[in-house]
Amino acid sequence: MVEFNDIIEIAKRRGFFWQSSLIHGSMAGFYEYAHLGTLLRRKWENAWRGFFLKLDDNFYEIMSSVIMPEGVFKASGHLKHFVDPVVKCSKCGNTERADHILEAELKENFEGLTPEEMTKLIKKHKIKCPKCRGPLESTGVFNMLFPMKVGAGKDVQTAYLTGETAQGAYVNFKLEFEALRRKLPMGLAIIGKAFRNEIAPRNALIRMREFSQAELQIFFDPDTITDHPDFGSVSGYKLRLLPASNRKSGRVEEVTCSKATGSLKLPKFYVYHMAKIQQFYLDVLKLPAETLRFRQLTDEEKAFYNKYHWDIELNLPSMGGFKEVAGIHYRTDHDLKGHQEVSGENMVVDVDGKKVLPHVLELSFGVDRNIYALFELSYKEEKERTVMSFPRVASPFDAGIFPLVKKDGLPEKSREIQKVLEGAGMNVFYDETGSIGRRYRRIDEIGVPIGITIDYDTMKDGSVTMRDRDSMKQVRVDADDIEKAIKGFMSGQDIAKLGKSVK
Amino acid sequence: MVEFNDIIEIAKRRGFFWQSSLIHGSMAGFYEYAHLGTLLRRKWENAWRGFFLKLDDNFYEIMSSVIMPEGVFKASGHLKHFVDPVVKCSKCGNTERADHILEAELKENFEGLTPEEMTKLIKKHKIKCPKCRGPLESTGVFNMLFPMKVGAGKDVQTAYLTGETAQGAYVNFKLEFEALRRKLPMGLAIIGKAFRNEIAPRNALIRMREFSQAELQIFFDPDTITDHPDFGSVSGYKLRLLPASNRKSGRVEEVTCSKATGSLKLPKFYVYHMAKIQQFYLDVLKLPAETLRFRQLTDEEKAFYNKYHWDIELNLPSMGGFKEVAGIHYRTDHDLKGHQEVSGENMVVDVDGKKVLPHVLELSFGVDRNIYALFELSYKEEKERTVMSFPRVASPFDAGIFPLVKKDGLPEKSREIQKVLEGAGMNVFYDETGSIGRRYRRIDEIGVPIGITIDYDTMKDGSVTMRDRDSMKQVRVDADDIEKAIKGFMSGQDIAKLGKSVK
Repeated sequence: MVEFNDIIEIAKRRGFFWQSSLIHGSMAGFYEYAHLGTLLRRKWENAWRGFFLKLDDNFYEIMSSVIMPEGVFKASGHLKHFVDPVVKCSKCGNTERADHILEAELKENFEGLTPEEMTKLIKKHKIKCPKCRGPLESTGVFNMLFPMKVGAGKDVQTAYLTGETAQGAYVNFKLEFEALRRKLPMGLAIIGKAFRNEIAPRNALIRMREFSQAELQIFFDPDTITDHPDFGSVSGYKLRLLPASNRKSGRVEEVTCSKATGSLKLPKFYVYHMAKIQQFYLDVLKLPAETLRFRQLTDEEKAFYNKYHWDIELNLPSMGGFKEVAGIHYRTDHDLKGHQEVSGENMVVDVDGKKVLPHVLELSFGVDRNIYALFELSYKEEKERTVMSFPRVASPFDAGIFPLVKKDGLPEKSREIQKVLEGAGMNVFYDETGSIGRRYRRIDEIGVPIGITIDYDTMKDGSVTMRDRDSMKQVRVDADDIEKAIKGFMSGQDIAKLGKSVK
Repeated sequence: MVEFNDIIEIAKRRGFFWQSSLIHGSMAGFYEYAHLGTLLRRKWENAWRGFFLKLDDNFYEIMSSVIMPEGVFKASGHLKHFVDPVVKCSKCGNTERADHILEAELKENFEGLTPEEMTKLIKKHKIKCPKCRGPLESTGVFNMLFPMKVGAGKDVQTAYLTGETAQGAYVNFKLEFEALRRKLPMGLAIIGKAFRNEIAPRNALIRMREFSQAELQIFFDPDTITDHPDFGSVSGYKLRLLPASNRKSGRVEEVTCSKATGSLKLPKFYVYHMAKIQQFYLDVLKLPAETLRFRQLTDEEKAFYNKYHWDIELNLPSMGGFKEVAGIHYRTDHDLKGHQEVSGENMVVDVDGKKVLPHVLELSFGVDRNIYALFELSYKEEKERTVMSFPRVASPFDAGIFPLVKKDGLPEKSREIQKVLEGAGMNVFYDETGSIGRRYRRIDEIGVPIGITIDYDTMKDGSVTMRDRDSMKQVRVDADDIEKAIKGFMSGQDIAKLGKSVK
């Protein structure tokens, strides 16, 4: 089984990701995307965009500021509620999350308790500072927002780095509604940075202080939640669910969307989007079904404003099992109502004569967590090679191109084919150094799904070799058809059907 | 002539950009990209990426953190030098940039003077607070970095939001060099956010507090600066230059790259990249040549570590003339040496046995300034319509698709063609409401270069109408050839050659 430290080591050595500003001493919770990680991440983001923004003509992407004025965070509740429970040692000054200390000592999960409850438990079990065994003070709260001063002199304003991209969609909702089609549902997507001063950042890209989210906020008329015009297309589709009642057994149930609306009392508008999220993971990224589950949060666990909240979890062995990578939250009118109250700005919109304060369905994805998950799930040590079997749609490169030798016009022919493929929007890795076997190993290691070799036969009959990273099968394809063959392969066709088999 | 306020009004009404968090009261220096602005910006970024990252096999894109530890800014010199000269009124507390106050009173440009020099001038000319006419204190300095505390308790660390994306490339240089081809020149590009607590943000996207940069840092062996392997391809290419000696006359000289190396004593490696920048604006974005000039900075104006520094300026009437949108800076070994000294980490690399401390050539683009410039330069009020004649490569949408009427299968046929084009990676705007003339006006206003109409003839002979936004010429094209026709049009072909003319 792959270990966490192996993943981190490989990510660094091959240039996917590593800790930030390493030469100046590390700061926990910050990571950089190196060259290959950047390509992988852009592919994932484009796949996300291509899928979720296409769900409705009235879904749009926007970009917003990460520094926002205090009013935004009063309205969102972050100033009051965006807190970690912390406890300080009165002897050595060590400050840690109280629930983490309790968990380490008592081997149970204490997330979600109030500071008072944690203080009681610490007293009851006579828990000491884990660093110096000194006495612990009462549990307090630590706000995770990063505050800052904008401007100078008497014009200075208090502002914060945003803790989630969502607020960017809420503060812009009314202006976008007026500039666009003035109808609901309207979706505003943001792929951007968010910041949380976590007391205990950990697990590399899983819990960071500076991280990225891909979120789609769907504003809709609450009267329409009981249906979705395309529900029929998913009614028989089976969701992989872990309802709260199955929490102890861990048993995932496969439940059709139709049945989920009945047995779990979820509205069709919510369930339709659950199906779409699952399809993104299983049909677009083509992850194995058993990798994914929806986990229902209990009333104690979910935010008070979320009426329905299921997390999307992927099974990551290096993290000890299923980890949250996304969530689907029915936030009711909490957000627009909050901004309306604090700003005094009316958030009600007129939809064909009907006055509506829209409710929000939020599809929220942790970009970095998803990248980490793809990286871990794709990593395979085989007998003679290491392979990153990235989903074809998310591979850093679409294809590698290799002239068999560095002479006789083979490099020129290879560059020609490279240009054609790049002209078709593909990302191509060119390599002419070392034996062809070594070059195959190199692209296997960085997860390029196809290798194309130009050899002396190419110069004679115009055919090239196309090799599948995963099966290592090879076929010969006419160079003029290579663009079409790659597109066929990317869309899931078997390589054996794309050319003449090579033994 | 277009006025600044017209631009801002149009940008907001049509949904390109507007001030951030408006409902919570504005904070100067922060802007949001609405839906159309986001599409426009992504197109510009992709055009930038497609051009500059293709200049060399050894150029790569990376993504880095925006929160960085203190050591980074000690090494870069930002803690000492990244300052605005400010002066405070001792009566009303108003704090402003001293050079701006001097400029307003004395009608001259005082940027670059020391605080002491500014204090002297203020005394000499008896300048008072522009707000209350109270006495001004001595000119001080105000650091533009945004500081913050990361962590809690005794583990707290001082960090800053980065003032330029460049540092992300420098702190990652050595790790990338080792993970990649281990050769020079190596380029690291970052398209990302940067933050400056400007005392006087202004002119919308031109001087912001939170903004975006697209920068390419080219690390090279200083011994190779006198040549570039592709210099021959640009030696006769004419650069549009405003040398410091022409500053007063404002006369732009057209100088071949060859000549520039001699008369202006610029090394070939530098001049080659000047040519590439100009080609990006004139050949990729297809801006008119007279819109652009390179402006040489004098020794007093440029940062002490820049040996050569020319700004790229575009002529923006609403801003009163040429404004900086990019720069090309030969930064010598300033950056890697600084990081080496502060971090103690050796930045010398081994290139085929030769030990080199690389020098840096920086190509730096203000993303927001470029978007603003494109927006302003594309805006045209004509007799019967408003047109945003965006460069074809940067238009928010590639094409609009319209069924002539909402019946008889025309919408279905239109959706079919939309799907084909989207499958080919295009961004298509579908519209079936209102008269066809009104729909053309709508896409003219948001800058879609091509309109495609599906009518009854389409159902009979399979041909569609294709209309050019700029010339308003129309041709009929076989629906099966429409993808090819659009690609031809995008690559600069005349619409008359792509189909049968329609009167």
